[in-house]
Amino acid sequence: MEESFVPFRGIKNDLRGRLKCYKQDWTGGFGAGFRILAPTTYIFFASAIPVISFGEQLERDTDGVLTAVQTLASTALCGIIHSIIGGQPLLILGVAEPTVIMYTFMFNFAKNRLDLGSELFLAWTGWVCVWTAILLFLLAILGACSIINRFTRLAGELFGLLIAMLFMQQAIKGLVDEFRIPERENPKLVEFQPSWRFANGMFALVLSFGLLLTALRSRKARSWRFGSGSLRGFIADYGVPLMVLVWTAISYVPAGTIPKGIPRRLFSPNPWSPGAYENWTVIKDMLKVPVLYIIGAFIPATMIAVLYYFDHSVAAQLAQQKEFNLRKPPSFHYDLLLLGFLTILCGLIGIPPANGVIPQSPMHTKSLATLKHQLLRNRLVATARKCMRKNGSLGQVYESMQEAYQQMQTPLIYQEPSARGLKELKESTIQMASNMGNINAPVDETVFDVEKEIDDLLPVEVKEQRLSNLLQATMVGGCVAAMPFIKKIPTSVLWGYFAFMAIESLPGNQFWERILLLFTAPSRRYKVLEEYHATFVETVPFKTIAVFTIFQTAYLFVCFGITWIPIAGVLFPLMIMLLVPVRQYILPKFFKGPHLQDLDAAEYEESPAVPFNLVTQEGELVRTASFADDEEILDGMITRSRGEIRRMCSPKVTSSTATPSKEFKSLQSPRFSEKVYSPRVSELREEQSPGKVGRGSFSPRTHEGKPSNLGKSG
Amino acid sequence: MEESFVPFRGIKNDLRGRLKCYKQDWTGGFGAGFRILAPTTYIFFASAIPVISFGEQLERDTDGVLTAVQTLASTALCGIIHSIIGGQPLLILGVAEPTVIMYTFMFNFAKNRLDLGSELFLAWTGWVCVWTAILLFLLAILGACSIINRFTRLAGELFGLLIAMLFMQQAIKGLVDEFRIPERENPKLVEFQPSWRFANGMFALVLSFGLLLTALRSRKARSWRFGSGSLRGFIADYGVPLMVLVWTAISYVPAGTIPKGIPRRLFSPNPWSPGAYENWTVIKDMLKVPVLYIIGAFIPATMIAVLYYFDHSVAAQLAQQKEFNLRKPPSFHYDLLLLGFLTILCGLIGIPPANGVIPQSPMHTKSLATLKHQLLRNRLVATARKCMRKNGSLGQVYESMQEAYQQMQTPLIYQEPSARGLKELKESTIQMASNMGNINAPVDETVFDVEKEIDDLLPVEVKEQRLSNLLQATMVGGCVAAMPFIKKIPTSVLWGYFAFMAIESLPGNQFWERILLLFTAPSRRYKVLEEYHATFVETVPFKTIAVFTIFQTAYLFVCFGITWIPIAGVLFPLMIMLLVPVRQYILPKFFKGPHLQDLDAAEYEESPAVPFNLVTQEGELVRTASFADDEEILDGMITRSRGEIRRMCSPKVTSSTATPSKEFKSLQSPRFSEKVYSPRVSELREEQSPGKVGRGSFSPRTHEGKPSNLGKSG
Repeated sequence: MEESFVPFRGIKNDLRGRLKCYKQDWTGGFGAGFRILAPTTYIFFASAIPVISFGEQLERDTDGVLTAVQTLASTALCGIIHSIIGGQPLLILGVAEPTVIMYTFMFNFAKNRLDLGSELFLAWTGWVCVWTAILLFLLAILGACSIINRFTRLAGELFGLLIAMLFMQQAIKGLVDEFRIPERENPKLVEFQPSWRFANGMFALVLSFGLLLTALRSRKARSWRFGSGSLRGFIADYGVPLMVLVWTAISYVPAGTIPKGIPRRLFSPNPWSPGAYENWTVIKDMLKVPVLYIIGAFIPATMIAVLYYFDHSVAAQLAQQKEFNLRKPPSFHYDLLLLGFLTILCGLIGIPPANGVIPQSPMHTKSLATLKHQLLRNRLVATARKCMRKNGSLGQVYESMQEAYQQMQTPLIYQEPSARGLKELKESTIQMASNMGNINAPVDETVFDVEKEIDDLLPVEVKEQRLSNLLQATMVGGCVAAMPFIKKIPTSVLWGYFAFMAIESLPGNQFWERILLLFTAPSRRYKVLEEYHATFVETVPFKTIAVFTIFQTAYLFVCFGITWIPIAGVLFPLMIMLLVPVRQYILPKFFKGPHLQDLDAAEYEESPAVPFNLVTQEGELVRTASFADDEEILDGMITRSRGEIRRMCSPKVTSSTATPSKEFKSLQSPRFSEKVYSPRVSELREEQSPGKVGRGSFSPRTHEGKPSNLGKSG
Repeated sequence: MEESFVPFRGIKNDLRGRLKCYKQDWTGGFGAGFRILAPTTYIFFASAIPVISFGEQLERDTDGVLTAVQTLASTALCGIIHSIIGGQPLLILGVAEPTVIMYTFMFNFAKNRLDLGSELFLAWTGWVCVWTAILLFLLAILGACSIINRFTRLAGELFGLLIAMLFMQQAIKGLVDEFRIPERENPKLVEFQPSWRFANGMFALVLSFGLLLTALRSRKARSWRFGSGSLRGFIADYGVPLMVLVWTAISYVPAGTIPKGIPRRLFSPNPWSPGAYENWTVIKDMLKVPVLYIIGAFIPATMIAVLYYFDHSVAAQLAQQKEFNLRKPPSFHYDLLLLGFLTILCGLIGIPPANGVIPQSPMHTKSLATLKHQLLRNRLVATARKCMRKNGSLGQVYESMQEAYQQMQTPLIYQEPSARGLKELKESTIQMASNMGNINAPVDETVFDVEKEIDDLLPVEVKEQRLSNLLQATMVGGCVAAMPFIKKIPTSVLWGYFAFMAIESLPGNQFWERILLLFTAPSRRYKVLEEYHATFVETVPFKTIAVFTIFQTAYLFVCFGITWIPIAGVLFPLMIMLLVPVRQYILPKFFKGPHLQDLDAAEYEESPAVPFNLVTQEGELVRTASFADDEEILDGMITRSRGEIRRMCSPKVTSSTATPSKEFKSLQSPRFSEKVYSPRVSELREEQSPGKVGRGSFSPRTHEGKPSNLGKSG
């Protein structure tokens, strides 16, 4: 994105680009058939459970004014609208943790004001949303999204770690509360006797740690030794909702011998209970809010606007990383404008607004890449087999495959006439074919493993459409009707889930890795390099890394401390904003340019000379990314933490945990490995490994003039 | 050992060999100075905690007749006697799980007989011990130990897994009981109200899983990234007792808010309480036992004798594996004779007898190898530095080191005149020296990392002495006096410890690995090969492996089922005995010879031709074992499960989990690895990796004519 501040220009560009492919967004979705349900359910679970957890958090923090019903409703409503008229349908919307925190601040402020109180709280937030929306409109119109990359990795990862800390804080607070009598309950109930309270707390510990540990395990299922590949994939993808189910079931095991209130379960009125839909008519009360508060609402509104601008754009950016080789254009400015409208809408019906969420958005793109891969693969395998049955030569087989591939490509008007990717595919296939021997001799499956070949050949492509987004949002809406079932989830399971989210967001966050590095024994520091392949470990002196990390950690604790301040805590997004000038003007005074560049690259700084060995590596990376086995590699591409930018965006800092160990294995036991891989494949692996998922040179996004800084890590 | 059944010949040989080095056994121990305390405390913790756990188990199973006081006393008494007059001082004695099981069977039998009852139970077991001792005498005199290797890997690993199952059963049973009212307690106490019982059970779950998970983690501390090497080593070695301490402390956290009986703690009278020392005078009652029962005691006695013969000899064998390069002779027959005397002694004073225990015995040898290494290393480093200060050439440095090395060798009369190891050390050093350039040029520490060199050069040697064994047994005896402190351990922590012992015994057990292999996805079976480097995966068809494993599993479940039969359960050691004829006469009818050889090598079967690629590997393995960094490799040498024979005994099936990953790392990041390792060292590593710890060709044990089968795995 170029930095351009001509009013409306960004929005106009976005609309022009997206309208051209709007029809294809729908036909493509329906064309995929039932297979579209796989990414849909995957994203549905990934967004429903956090939203329910946030609902429970809000229920406690707002004395029951807002509950899971409202968070689910907001997520569903915004998701449906965005999937239909939003710019970038890969973006997933949901109520996020920062929103919950801001609403908690606002509630704590409002409930103690005599002329507001918890009765007018929602009406007042309505005004906050109006102001927020106005600010978002301004930002969108003035093209603020084009400078989103002024927030460097420093800001993004600090924000990610801050959110992780807040998650962990909530998990610990929730668990401690399980030992106490809840505020709004009758302390004379059987389950609040000291013995049962202690029992409840211990049970909560068992349930939450059980969920945490099993969920963390299930995420790693792809590398398990047991079960078939599809089962392992299923557990890795759906293990977390499955574990919520399992631990909810376990919580009913001792049901016969303990009072009904143990363990404590999700509290939320059914949406059809009286009083549960009070919030929908909040617009009636908005004029009852005193004028001073209407004006004062501007203060939290600026904070929320800053948050949304940052969070929404980063989520959109991560869902559209270059590695995904997207063909359809992005839509940052228009989406921010739409977010403004959605915020007003939510404000007027008294529900917390939803915005673009991480990690669900990049997860969505990734699952659609898997879908597209399956579709392409099936077609190409069928074509190749057909050609081989006709005694076609290797050259002919590849030719027929290329033809089929071309047919599968969406004919998009806005695309450049000669798609570079096809040319490249052809070149590489011909080269491989000639490597394998006589290009004109007939081949059969004994010498030519079609499926393996095609897996290696196919570039990462994404099934870009609107249907999966629409369906998942609708299913989230369905959860509101399923409240009687959702209420069976023990709160302790949700605390475990909060801890899980916090821990899951850490790997890949370079800031976190640097903190770990400070505690790593000097003799084992090389391990960091192997695991994360972080350039800075090699190029920046340890002392500089340490000082930079300690500064960042101190800044993090200041941010965290601010959230503890009763009302001024609402200002914490300011600290994130402040990082832009700090990074741009203050840090360069304390750190050498090249060091800073390696620790936190900023586009606006002159790019330093790339060390010689990296140049060669980059040169080797022309090959397009391919699907390695079990999607372990693609899995790594998901940015799993909010506001965190993964290391594999730039080739020079990428590494792979899955591929090299394979390579090593083939070195270790040569005899056996030949049975498993054809030698060519392992060669290929070696070629790929330095860059993991090669640069998306297949079909570069023509709308993105420059690579974004946020997406660059070295 | 040759199979020889001339009466007393084995015992005579043993005594002759050990008497020659008896004096050195003591001088060597005292000569090591304070450093001897490290292996001593290490083994003390490793034997005290299980013995306390078994005491708790016995306390429940014998209605309090036997407690931790008796198990500790037996372990201490037998340990002290064995360390002073035992044959092989590397062997560690203790009350083991099979003993506990047999005593439980006997108690259940006795308590229901009107003419025995729990009053005469100990008197009756006195008779059982007398019979057992007579049988052990016979076995020792007739040289039964020379055929211990008829128990092949099949029997050893099945026994190991059976013990693991019994441990796990005890852990689960113990945890379930935490939710119930204990049998011998007043059910009207506060802590047995339903609410507190449930709370106690949940607390027990937290404590036992907490211990289990943290103990398992701490065992892997050596490969952690954090902390210094010595801290990591400390945690790996002492993590388990440390965790028992930590979780005991945690169990006191909620002490203020809960009744005193929660969580339940170890139950045992103080040794000075009235009634606690009744057992010591049991000899008075022995004549009160009806004659029929005195004769009937022969039946359990045969079972215990079989158990002890098997368990004691295997423990001794594992403590003296060839990899340890022991210099002093073994003493199987004499030790079995002594065990007979110890059994009578224990029987007459009413305590359960102790026998040689796994894994403590091989752990003891290993910790002494570390000690010896430190002593040698310090001396050699000092010598080398001194020589380098005098501007000595590389050749001179090595010469001086060899001289020092020779001085450190114990001048043993029984040793062969020319110690092969020294010659080899010289050859390899000279070769290395010439590799490094001019052999006569002076060297200094900038080009020559003395400590690293010496680490790589030094062979595995063990500080063979009696002091550490004596001290640890004395410390176990001291635990009896410390009962008031030991009683603070919650029982649930011990259940967690039982589960820990069960899980810790699994890795390395090839039977277990084959069970896992059955459930491994076909595409991932190669991973087994990498991790365990098990030959059979390559040479035996999967179907044959599956049938063999299913047979073994069925046999295991039959054994396990027998232990559930109320009184006949006492016969379970018969099933282990039965495996000898089953393996020798029945299995060869169902499996091809070479397959059986790979799955379960037996010495009495003809050795099949070794595949060509293994010959070369063996040829490369002339190098002696050396201490790789952090002792991770030596760590792998410990046989961690009872009755289980580790895979690294024969070079052709060995592999390393630590070294190859290092190698791979150096391939991955060549630039960085050069900083960490000198290239020579990584070359060295590569040479070693196929055999992990190379064959102990340094100073083969002259008394062992043939390699034992139990110690051979391929």
